[in-house]
Amino acid sequence: MKKAVILLSGGLDSATVLAMARRDGFECYCLSFNYGQRHTAELAAAARVATALGAREHRVATIDLAAFGGSALTDASIAVPVDGVKEGEIPLTYVPARNTIMLSFALGWAEVLGANDIFIGVNAVDYSGYPDCRPEYISAFEMMGNLATRAGVEGASLRIHTPLISLSKAEIIVAGSKLGVDYGQTVSCYQADLQGRACGVCDACRLRSAGFAAAGVADPTPYR
Amino acid sequence: MKKAVILLSGGLDSATVLAMARRDGFECYCLSFNYGQRHTAELAAAARVATALGAREHRVATIDLAAFGGSALTDASIAVPVDGVKEGEIPLTYVPARNTIMLSFALGWAEVLGANDIFIGVNAVDYSGYPDCRPEYISAFEMMGNLATRAGVEGASLRIHTPLISLSKAEIIVAGSKLGVDYGQTVSCYQADLQGRACGVCDACRLRSAGFAAAGVADPTPYR
Repeated sequence: MKKAVILLSGGLDSATVLAMARRDGFECYCLSFNYGQRHTAELAAAARVATALGAREHRVATIDLAAFGGSALTDASIAVPVDGVKEGEIPLTYVPARNTIMLSFALGWAEVLGANDIFIGVNAVDYSGYPDCRPEYISAFEMMGNLATRAGVEGASLRIHTPLISLSKAEIIVAGSKLGVDYGQTVSCYQADLQGRACGVCDACRLRSAGFAAAGVADPTPYR
Repeated sequence: MKKAVILLSGGLDSATVLAMARRDGFECYCLSFNYGQRHTAELAAAARVATALGAREHRVATIDLAAFGGSALTDASIAVPVDGVKEGEIPLTYVPARNTIMLSFALGWAEVLGANDIFIGVNAVDYSGYPDCRPEYISAFEMMGNLATRAGVEGASLRIHTPLISLSKAEIIVAGSKLGVDYGQTVSCYQADLQGRACGVCDACRLRSAGFAAAGVADPTPYR
């Protein structure tokens, strides 16, 4: 069975990605991060999702993104925006280099595991304002990752899988529901409380709730 | 004054890089990592070096490389090799994805600072067995970094500076000595004790000691 490292945040998107990787026959090693995010309920959700979807292993690495600030998600002095996403702008919830750092950790674990496959739930539709959710960024990371590792030097070929990159939120929900993802276990809210209950007004809540509506699937999100 | 992020380990190479970046007129923001390495005396050395060479700021980010193991530097079950480097092999002291992870953090901090320059002391001569010390790897990271960030999207151009990449250890020591680097403040040993005293037999000690000899510079390293 081929091994894959799955970046698992505990949100809706990455839960769907894990289900897709399992469907594709991978033995899944899930990686979450404790990065000083406000929504730590995500980590409890990630653990639930990893178990429910049959991951082989789930690890949480602590990283210190808060040391740099610069984002509403890691800097307590910047408020989480609750008035919707503006067209063509990079949102305040963008965390500098977050995907690069997370993919780099996945790369390291993949090298130790002997895995050539990494899955990440980036999406270029809903997160068009995030530079590190674009296909050209992912291709560049893949190229760099192949030069960075022992496996790459020895001829193995790293692949970064982004099965959600061109799907709408509704399409993601429909696909995940077919694969048995229980979205009631996932937490997307940028400011969820300790029980994982969502605020309903941040960008992540808005996207998620609109996604369930467009998919015609009942929204299982617990709101506070 | 242009800002630069300098990856500063506390060893001989990165101290020289900091001195070179200062010579080139950069305001220097130094970044070190606490990554569960055995040689934590490096971090005390990094703080001394940053102050001595006029860094604007020095931060230490904690990262969890030990979570993956796979290296003699982060995995307590793998002994640090003391019998010399073998030609054409990737040494046991190679830490999977370490440079990628560290450069990714530098990328994040650079984005928050508005810096377009990152300095790293990789060396393709002494560390020819490390995939992530090769020029083609650095170029690929630079390309990826330009796609990963807000600055890159807005047209700024990231540059990863590797002033040591083709220098021998002796040439590094000669260059740094001219710039006033006090190598007695630096720690290179993979298994230095808490006072920073070197073992004298690990690969890093061997390279360093041979470098001073070849440079004709007295070796200021405290050995235990």
